[in-house]
Amino acid sequence: MENGGTVNGHNGHSGLENGGAHAVHYFVGIEGGASHSQGVLLNEDAVILAKCRGCTTNQWVVGLDKACKTIADMVKELRQTANLPVDVPITSLGLCMSGADDEKKNQEWVTLLDEKFALARSYIIENDTLGSLATARSDLAGIVLISGTGSNCILRNPNGEVIHAGGWGHMLGDEGSGYWIAHYAIKTYFDHEDRVKISKYDLSLLSRLIVDYFGVEKRSELLKFFYSPFDKCFIAKFCEHLAEAATAGDPFCRKVFHEAGYVLANHIMAVLPDATQELKRQPGGIPIICVGSVFNSWELLKHGFMSRFDDNIPEMTFFKLCGASAIGAAFLGAKSAGHIIPIDHLRPTQRFFNIGTVQ
Amino acid sequence: MENGGTVNGHNGHSGLENGGAHAVHYFVGIEGGASHSQGVLLNEDAVILAKCRGCTTNQWVVGLDKACKTIADMVKELRQTANLPVDVPITSLGLCMSGADDEKKNQEWVTLLDEKFALARSYIIENDTLGSLATARSDLAGIVLISGTGSNCILRNPNGEVIHAGGWGHMLGDEGSGYWIAHYAIKTYFDHEDRVKISKYDLSLLSRLIVDYFGVEKRSELLKFFYSPFDKCFIAKFCEHLAEAATAGDPFCRKVFHEAGYVLANHIMAVLPDATQELKRQPGGIPIICVGSVFNSWELLKHGFMSRFDDNIPEMTFFKLCGASAIGAAFLGAKSAGHIIPIDHLRPTQRFFNIGTVQ
Repeated sequence: MENGGTVNGHNGHSGLENGGAHAVHYFVGIEGGASHSQGVLLNEDAVILAKCRGCTTNQWVVGLDKACKTIADMVKELRQTANLPVDVPITSLGLCMSGADDEKKNQEWVTLLDEKFALARSYIIENDTLGSLATARSDLAGIVLISGTGSNCILRNPNGEVIHAGGWGHMLGDEGSGYWIAHYAIKTYFDHEDRVKISKYDLSLLSRLIVDYFGVEKRSELLKFFYSPFDKCFIAKFCEHLAEAATAGDPFCRKVFHEAGYVLANHIMAVLPDATQELKRQPGGIPIICVGSVFNSWELLKHGFMSRFDDNIPEMTFFKLCGASAIGAAFLGAKSAGHIIPIDHLRPTQRFFNIGTVQ
Repeated sequence: MENGGTVNGHNGHSGLENGGAHAVHYFVGIEGGASHSQGVLLNEDAVILAKCRGCTTNQWVVGLDKACKTIADMVKELRQTANLPVDVPITSLGLCMSGADDEKKNQEWVTLLDEKFALARSYIIENDTLGSLATARSDLAGIVLISGTGSNCILRNPNGEVIHAGGWGHMLGDEGSGYWIAHYAIKTYFDHEDRVKISKYDLSLLSRLIVDYFGVEKRSELLKFFYSPFDKCFIAKFCEHLAEAATAGDPFCRKVFHEAGYVLANHIMAVLPDATQELKRQPGGIPIICVGSVFNSWELLKHGFMSRFDDNIPEMTFFKLCGASAIGAAFLGAKSAGHIIPIDHLRPTQRFFNIGTVQ
């Protein structure tokens, strides 16, 4: 799986790295989220030469063609910022993309990208969870739990085995994500108003928040946001207003975050049985790397999150990833091209929780 | 609400109906479903002069422009089949469309249709539930429960008051529909495989059905059906295979239809409190008009459906609508233009169930 998306790039470039002792290498990493993308250009010493931001490159949101164009634009911007001469190639382009779970589709993506734009000498494409893991952990082992616009979870054992849970997008997954939280609230409101499921909570604040955020007066006017065109990112951002209301004490909004915490923890419970003894026996137990803006509301999620665990779980230490997953993407791309870049100084993680029993 | 979508049509037509005693009127009705549309052309004596079928005209599935084009093509085909000379106008075009719940959007739709295609002297646009009711009941009173590709429910009292439940499309509603049933099964399979929600049922037949129907080997290959492009109708049709498996006794597939029955009945329970005494006191109690292909699996739905009702419900008689809802759409269009067309002979309904207590 780890090398599943690696392909050799376009052959038309001059190979600076074959030019002798003065070969210089440049590595690009791109993290493709469901709402936006981040790019970084590093040299062999892991010095950040350029950073950039682009719109979403999630293939299920914008399609492969649009995603390729955005990636090409981002690489161009990175090259310009770093003043990279036009004849200097990028050694590797590491792409860690939300929604990139299918090996065949990943190969298709890379082929399209290389044929159309010839951006680098080699490419690697992986799921965004692996980019986060590579940014956070030099041993590439642990659990990554993403909750931004969408959600996803992987466990990667020290032996390289990868186990997935979730990450199927808003139609079949995304539990506990910003979109899921916003949708949960709106659906509760619709069902309550229809009386198909009467909520025991007072939804009057929720209904005011919906009216204000979406600028609508009637429920039927909300449909356009879900259907024509579907604006996942805009819907997901409604979550911020729910978080504010929950923090201010609104019981329904608190309940939504409680549920979100539970289903997020549920991802961890799903992959936990496959954690090897080697992973469990690390200092602090299994590292759990939490990524995405929903974790900014940890205090709201915490109670529901913890309620999913019992006393028998192994020790786990939770970290927030503060650095960009694009760093890890660049690292993985470089590694697949035979270069280990020293990114340890670019791994800012913040330990925020420890639970479970040392095993 | 009933006349909410009525507008006067394009003024460029010659007005045959103002031409004296020999005025002849033609009425078109179109029912726009989420998978396909049906059209009918009637004369004043409710003689069917032409019928036709088109693709979906659901605005949330194809957008307004495409929906207008399909409607125009259908009217053209109806005129050609009936050999209607080009200078003979259609008196009214009655549109009963799935997803047409917003009055403002309906007005926009009719304006666009008239400006672009000038199809009729007057238009009416209503939700497809009302077309079904108009087809089934001369008094336009009762409950309509639709379950085809999508689902919806309305109660219409004899005084014209209309109460809705559901009908918000696959993102916010559609409970108990073909799409909902297919999605429920597929989501159960995904969650089970991920171990985020382990099913107590044996899903091996379900997994074979998915592999065969969608022609995929891995779950990741299924995503394209949900995202690029989303093919609601194709996903919904998977329901037929689940129905076959349920009929053959597969416990999980039986459970899915049990759940579908429950959530369909839930729509009725949602609107029931608003039924007037006049409606309840009809012979047979409240007429429930069931429309859509999912009711072909009534034997599978029945147990779950009935489990939603208690002993205190008023008497209700269930009918399957055998005629096209396009007939009712033509009737409503004609009525809004001041013509009552005698469609009683076009109201084939089949009584299939009676429950509750006479009140």
